[in-house]
Amino acid sequence: MREIAPAIDALRALLGDRLSTAAAVRDQHGQNETYFPPTPPDAVAFPETTEEVSQIVAICARHRCPVVPYGAGSSLEGHHLPVQGGVTLDFARMNRVLAVRAEDLNVVIQPGITREALNTELRATGLFFPVDPGANASLGGMAATRASGTTAVRYGTMRENVLALEAVMADGTVIRTGTAARKSSSGYDLTHLLVGSEGTLGIITELTLKLQGIPEAISAATCRFETVADAVNTVILTIQSGIPMARIELVDEMMARGFNLYSKAGLPEKPHLFVEFHGSPDAVREQATAFGDIAAEFGADGFSWTDDHEARSAMWKMRHASHYASWALSPGKKFLPTDVCVPISALAEAVVTAQDEARRLGLTCTIVGHVGDGNFHCGVGVDRADAEEVARVEGFTDMLAKMALRLGGTVTGEHGIGLGKQKYMAAEHGPALAYMRAIKASFDPQDILNPGKILPPGNM
Amino acid sequence: MREIAPAIDALRALLGDRLSTAAAVRDQHGQNETYFPPTPPDAVAFPETTEEVSQIVAICARHRCPVVPYGAGSSLEGHHLPVQGGVTLDFARMNRVLAVRAEDLNVVIQPGITREALNTELRATGLFFPVDPGANASLGGMAATRASGTTAVRYGTMRENVLALEAVMADGTVIRTGTAARKSSSGYDLTHLLVGSEGTLGIITELTLKLQGIPEAISAATCRFETVADAVNTVILTIQSGIPMARIELVDEMMARGFNLYSKAGLPEKPHLFVEFHGSPDAVREQATAFGDIAAEFGADGFSWTDDHEARSAMWKMRHASHYASWALSPGKKFLPTDVCVPISALAEAVVTAQDEARRLGLTCTIVGHVGDGNFHCGVGVDRADAEEVARVEGFTDMLAKMALRLGGTVTGEHGIGLGKQKYMAAEHGPALAYMRAIKASFDPQDILNPGKILPPGNM
Repeated sequence: MREIAPAIDALRALLGDRLSTAAAVRDQHGQNETYFPPTPPDAVAFPETTEEVSQIVAICARHRCPVVPYGAGSSLEGHHLPVQGGVTLDFARMNRVLAVRAEDLNVVIQPGITREALNTELRATGLFFPVDPGANASLGGMAATRASGTTAVRYGTMRENVLALEAVMADGTVIRTGTAARKSSSGYDLTHLLVGSEGTLGIITELTLKLQGIPEAISAATCRFETVADAVNTVILTIQSGIPMARIELVDEMMARGFNLYSKAGLPEKPHLFVEFHGSPDAVREQATAFGDIAAEFGADGFSWTDDHEARSAMWKMRHASHYASWALSPGKKFLPTDVCVPISALAEAVVTAQDEARRLGLTCTIVGHVGDGNFHCGVGVDRADAEEVARVEGFTDMLAKMALRLGGTVTGEHGIGLGKQKYMAAEHGPALAYMRAIKASFDPQDILNPGKILPPGNM
Repeated sequence: MREIAPAIDALRALLGDRLSTAAAVRDQHGQNETYFPPTPPDAVAFPETTEEVSQIVAICARHRCPVVPYGAGSSLEGHHLPVQGGVTLDFARMNRVLAVRAEDLNVVIQPGITREALNTELRATGLFFPVDPGANASLGGMAATRASGTTAVRYGTMRENVLALEAVMADGTVIRTGTAARKSSSGYDLTHLLVGSEGTLGIITELTLKLQGIPEAISAATCRFETVADAVNTVILTIQSGIPMARIELVDEMMARGFNLYSKAGLPEKPHLFVEFHGSPDAVREQATAFGDIAAEFGADGFSWTDDHEARSAMWKMRHASHYASWALSPGKKFLPTDVCVPISALAEAVVTAQDEARRLGLTCTIVGHVGDGNFHCGVGVDRADAEEVARVEGFTDMLAKMALRLGGTVTGEHGIGLGKQKYMAAEHGPALAYMRAIKASFDPQDILNPGKILPPGNM
């Protein structure tokens, strides 16, 4: 049915040496940051233009050959693994800023650019792109997985920050969705259907993103608490009070230990909040005072403030290394990150239950999270060769997912479904899942666009 | 093909006297606020529960009978007109607040409640729902048309404010999309596919909406300018400076005349901005000062400030009557409101061109707009019996729509496509339109959900 070899021959004729079947290149594109087995593609293509992506997809459509987009490879749910073989589209050569429209507070980019590279290019404009998942992900990948991260509590997720996009559809057709205007009521919202579709409905080849002015003043702080419940209750009251936090991140005692090990952080091994305030100098002072008052009610201690750019960067660099710092606590093991998100009022119950359950099961588990959104990650080491440990870890992650649904939340706040969360799609979406399948069948009837992702196997 | 009479018989058996075929009831539901000819349905149903809506749609599906949802009837593009006959579903009896979750800053409602009624019910909580299209529309209708209005510049449109929803699909299946968590990366974003789908993909039966804390301080002002370009350039610089305006509304000289006529406003007949600031007392002062400085650069004069609730209410009540105030300038005529939205940098060109062109054509045209979003409305009176005037008005609205597209904008910022804007769908969406048709064909293969809306006649 799938004619992969003939597709590769035709692609080689189109792309020349920008189509690779070298083992090293294929292996690199078959790796992942977590626990999925390596899954190399049959070939890797390096397109340079939308027109080329269109031609590639048209060739693949002719041969029913899977096409899997690839940005920075930083996905945590195996999104870029070609589980049905086929061709990986690496967007490394489509990484340019096409237009900075400072006067309209937006930027037009190719999908392969990373968020750090984008912000470096924007520096002279006084504007920045706020969404920050930690990893230096590609913007195309971030849009495709509806990523968010530390600043979503203030600036929203990729959902709120993609204004318009261009995509290549399953037969090679190029479409544009959205406009450069800030809002529209014109027709079905295909932009937001493609954002978060993980390359299964269309391949994003261009994005128009909203930008923000770099705040006049930025101030950051860490503080610690006696219990994780005190830290989380501080978050809940802060959010309910409407303080416009730019960042409010939970770090539990095990995560603090990980930072000490991996980043020589010298933190007391207690639950912490890492916070940041953006605005005018007066506004930042006002927000910081209001937050400090709430934190004090819950016994916050050891406040460490910094307005200095270098010190703030070091603090967030440490925070962004939480993935590796968690992994470092379980040497020699694979790493399994979870990603539930619950209504803010249920956050204390969720976090405390997660911590208690991990202890009960004897797991080395860090907790870190974008708690202003109700989103947190448990990071667990797992030895794939130890069946008993695998069972314990799977029991733990299953408990977390079901707890999130029971509390009115979601099994993934920002990592996406990919391979790892398909088993919860029916429980989370119920009868709505059939309508997702209908869209997929209608847009990609041959199932060539990143097949095997999002939708669990079933009546496709 | 469509068996309307048998459907009505079956519905009467289900609903008893909550299914009406009385001429007065049908006529009332066939009216509209603008220039579309009256189009009464064959019957009007008044469901009381989601289960009943599901049963009604299942009956209609069996008979291929059109089903058209109806909220407050305040649509400006004929959305609720049953142009292929069938049954109107009036949500007047599904107008309850189901749950106020103050601790999570959201509320669960039935679609028939109006925004004013919702905010009245919320008053004791210290929270409010910010989206304000002017008309006292139903929330279901606002979600279905992706409405926005005066506060979208600060709080976003319905797109940003619907967290989750329940809908009845074309065969009567009830689905739930989204969760009570603030974000999710779980699967295709059906919530935002249904928001703005104008009842053509599913009928919204429940909404979970984000709420905001009532600001500690609110201050509003009007000021006037010598030219509309000065007013608009003030807006552009204000938005580019990142001042978090809660409202920033343009009123041109003809609109000021309309307010004087309709609301005895006593305004100088010059271009005005109506603005509002929300925040802490300090933040409001800081924002107002920053705005005042920019406005002064463009010669703003006659600043009239008010912090008083009653005075502010009176000011926005006048503003919200712009539809009727515009209409009042052209007695005996029908009223045609336009709704383009352009990138903010193109706003001065768009507004000045619109004004010049209306003058050149000898039209009585008001301009009012949510200019912080780049969105403005020209309101033109038209005598449907005067073919020459109809042609002039149609030429004018066509020029506006094409100008918006040329400037990178959209033909509708917030009113929706309905009947009036279908002719621009191909120009605005190009090849993407085929994917909208594919979704409609897949979700509603018999074309019974609000048929004849959004998608222009063609290969359906």
